Amino acid sequence: MEFVGSHILSVSQFDRDAVERVFEVADRMIPYARRERVTRVLEGAILGNMFFEPSTRTRVSFGCAFNLLGGEVRETTEVKTSAIAKGESFYDTARVLSGYSDVIVMRHQKEGSVDEFASASRVPVLNGGDGANEHPTQALLDLYTIRKEIAAQGKDMENLRIALIGDLRNGRAVHSLCRLLALYDNVHFTLVSPEELRLPNNYVEAMRAAGHDVVEVDELVEGISHADILYVTRTQEERFPSPIEAEKYKGLFRLNQSIYTEFCEPNTVIMHPLPRDSRSDANELDNDMNENPNLAIFRQTDNGVIIRMALFALILDVVDDVDRHAREVSWYTASRF
Amino acid sequence: MEFVGSHILSVSQFDRDAVERVFEVADRMIPYARRERVTRVLEGAILGNMFFEPSTRTRVSFGCAFNLLGGEVRETTEVKTSAIAKGESFYDTARVLSGYSDVIVMRHQKEGSVDEFASASRVPVLNGGDGANEHPTQALLDLYTIRKEIAAQGKDMENLRIALIGDLRNGRAVHSLCRLLALYDNVHFTLVSPEELRLPNNYVEAMRAAGHDVVEVDELVEGISHADILYVTRTQEERFPSPIEAEKYKGLFRLNQSIYTEFCEPNTVIMHPLPRDSRSDANELDNDMNENPNLAIFRQTDNGVIIRMALFALILDVVDDVDRHAREVSWYTASRF
Amino acid sequence: MEFVGSHILSVSQFDRDAVERVFEVADRMIPYARRERVTRVLEGAILGNMFFEPSTRTRVSFGCAFNLLGGEVRETTEVKTSAIAKGESFYDTARVLSGYSDVIVMRHQKEGSVDEFASASRVPVLNGGDGANEHPTQALLDLYTIRKEIAAQGKDMENLRIALIGDLRNGRAVHSLCRLLALYDNVHFTLVSPEELRLPNNYVEAMRAAGHDVVEVDELVEGISHADILYVTRTQEERFPSPIEAEKYKGLFRLNQSIYTEFCEPNTVIMHPLPRDSRSDANELDNDMNENPNLAIFRQTDNGVIIRMALFALILDVVDDVDRHAREVSWYTASRF
Repeated sequence: MEFVGSHILSVSQFDRDAVERVFEVADRMIPYARRERVTRVLEGAILGNMFFEPSTRTRVSFGCAFNLLGGEVRETTEVKTSAIAKGESFYDTARVLSGYSDVIVMRHQKEGSVDEFASASRVPVLNGGDGANEHPTQALLDLYTIRKEIAAQGKDMENLRIALIGDLRNGRAVHSLCRLLALYDNVHFTLVSPEELRLPNNYVEAMRAAGHDVVEVDELVEGISHADILYVTRTQEERFPSPIEAEKYKGLFRLNQSIYTEFCEPNTVIMHPLPRDSRSDANELDNDMNENPNLAIFRQTDNGVIIRMALFALILDVVDDVDRHAREVSWYTASRF
Repeated sequence: MEFVGSHILSVSQFDRDAVERVFEVADRMIPYARRERVTRVLEGAILGNMFFEPSTRTRVSFGCAFNLLGGEVRETTEVKTSAIAKGESFYDTARVLSGYSDVIVMRHQKEGSVDEFASASRVPVLNGGDGANEHPTQALLDLYTIRKEIAAQGKDMENLRIALIGDLRNGRAVHSLCRLLALYDNVHFTLVSPEELRLPNNYVEAMRAAGHDVVEVDELVEGISHADILYVTRTQEERFPSPIEAEKYKGLFRLNQSIYTEFCEPNTVIMHPLPRDSRSDANELDNDMNENPNLAIFRQTDNGVIIRMALFALILDVVDDVDRHAREVSWYTASRF
Repeated sequence: MEFVGSHILSVSQFDRDAVERVFEVADRMIPYARRERVTRVLEGAILGNMFFEPSTRTRVSFGCAFNLLGGEVRETTEVKTSAIAKGESFYDTARVLSGYSDVIVMRHQKEGSVDEFASASRVPVLNGGDGANEHPTQALLDLYTIRKEIAAQGKDMENLRIALIGDLRNGRAVHSLCRLLALYDNVHFTLVSPEELRLPNNYVEAMRAAGHDVVEVDELVEGISHADILYVTRTQEERFPSPIEAEKYKGLFRLNQSIYTEFCEPNTVIMHPLPRDSRSDANELDNDMNENPNLAIFRQTDNGVIIRMALFALILDVVDDVDRHAREVSWYTASRF
């Protein structure tokens, strides 16, 4: 995979070498994300951070990643009032906006919209999420987190045991992560969901065809007891025929500290694509785990900045210049990681 | 016209010398807008990009122009929640905001609002559009585009033949452009519109009084057959007494590739202030012209950045410093122009 | 009070030494806020300007303050579409966002929300306003303005005479200012409000316990005739049982130039936390005072930038580096102060 000048639209663009290349560059971004060093390698470059669907977390993460490389960020956070709402095609929007910036991140709720936009853009486009379709930087940061958490325990990715928990039918984060994990060897997947919310069969078959072990269960305790990684997701109530129907799944997939202590192996890593719903009737991942050192959910979002810095550096061809423009940080920095 | 420290509120501020001065500076901004060079001449300066009416295109264009000169941008994109909605006068808003930045761009839907704001501002104000009244940077970028397109064909502005097409009664872009074109010599205007949507008579008379040739027609084919420039505009349905009434004009002014090939002279330039409505029932400028090299609509928006850079440089008195702070671009740059 | 790495959540954190320290640093920020000099001391640092309740003035003021120190700003201006609206806890929001930036400013309409957020944040948090509870930078800029205005007249804070006028029951700006003024010696407070809108008794008692003189009156003329400072506030209609009830207070507290000339001592300073409602039925501070040199309301907002720069410099420990990174401004600068 050639990164320089390329669009990043789908996880299907990545083979294992490409993933490893992103992660290797991501590792080199850590001192900058930790505010140990400052680089100005992209000073004068402009990111068009075009969020035609609202998002605080992902939008700010991309913007910070670009700022940390020294670049500027111009943004939009609205769709209703944009020219698209007045009948402008994605073609026109892309042609216009690509005259303003060096690279564009786009989110839009319509599936396929970012592909259509990218095909008309004169600068590289990163998919920041196009509806239920793709959100490739989320999958990359999840996989990067898995690798780091596993490595910190002295293990490697070979024979990784991961339990994917919750609404596996509807979550795009899970789908994309499965496709990336399938690039590795002998992954053991345990899919924990009720019958009705199972991972779509084409994913299961693709994983098995690639030589991975896939077990499907419908009880939380059974699923989590032999895993290196628990990947918990939100039950997406809005996709159910009725709220009453959704109700019956809620208790089944609620992970808290006492369940963790009783049933998980020591140091099992807990992940979640966030936001987690902390209201009492949802609460798929209880706040009583907040002090558990194996809770990796905020390391995931921290890693998101690093992954996005790596992608910008690769696409804009400045990987080897980052350190040349670096200097020490001279202000107070809190410890973040 | 003195630019340093001045407000830019109306095209009526510009005589021909002033227009030429803006264009001369704009030409010098091209290498920076094309990302061939980087300048940091405004490093430390702040633009207050105050859009009290939503706009993605114009807002981002102004913001990028300021970033490309090295400055920072602080923005607002809302009116409903601002202090103006709580009864604050434009006087107060201007006094307050002008303490925050070095220069302000303001858009507000109320006609005359930007003038009122500017009279109280302690820093220079650029009109980013005040309702149906003025949008001077749009007119300047349109004229700049006409000059460049014409020059690229070895012609000059003397005896320019331009066809203005569509809803000439309601479009402020057309009105302002007419006023600027009237500064040149012997322009031949063909106004293509239905009877009911003609250019207001005061514009026609002013143009004739300045020695220009003005012909009014109501058929597209007749209007476009002897022109250097076609300036197509959107039929502004919302101004019609009823949708049924608007309906009858739609087919008349639809320009597509086959009409262009059959009736236009070779290399006739096609312009549009954008957004164009690409829905099938509107479609005043068909997508089948997207590959036509004479379609200048995206060169117009690209030129918008250059014109806005030139105005900032002139107002803030850094024209001659731009190149002194310049260096080569060290990252991947797509070809944009 | 230790500033480096600290949260700024409440005026109650400040003793008199801490206030004086902020003001001393603020004085050193003036050349930068006036665009006489540029500093880049925070180049590479990122402010997370998280406004979960809309605000143009305060948000832009914080953002400009950070830009004037050389740092970058990432923002949010919405609450409805944020993860908080999907059930995310302040804990999670804080953990996530604090991985993106070096310091955070947060505004949210819920009282106590910023404290809760700060307790989970891994970087320093400044309270940009949490509902009716606290807005500490407003109180600091008000006090800083009082000191400067008084000093310009050759007086000092000892025996300061201040009249607080209007709806003293509901205004958080007044409450916080009283707490800061109480740190000084022998302040003479005249509280001008109707019976029903008096300052809550706990504030009055605290001020008296600290040795200050407090007089309560219900007539404007009586209240303003022996004061160094008039601090006028908006009658907050929305808190009244009915609009008819609010109606009767409006005329009582309307200050205009003729009342000022007739009843105030020469050079009495007029302040207001803004926005002032300039509609004819409100108009607590008439536009006919706009040319009065003692109208300090826009000096207040100008001072807001300086105070916020000082707090950022103190918290991020760059006070003594600011001048080392400084250079002259090379562009046109309007006179602002």
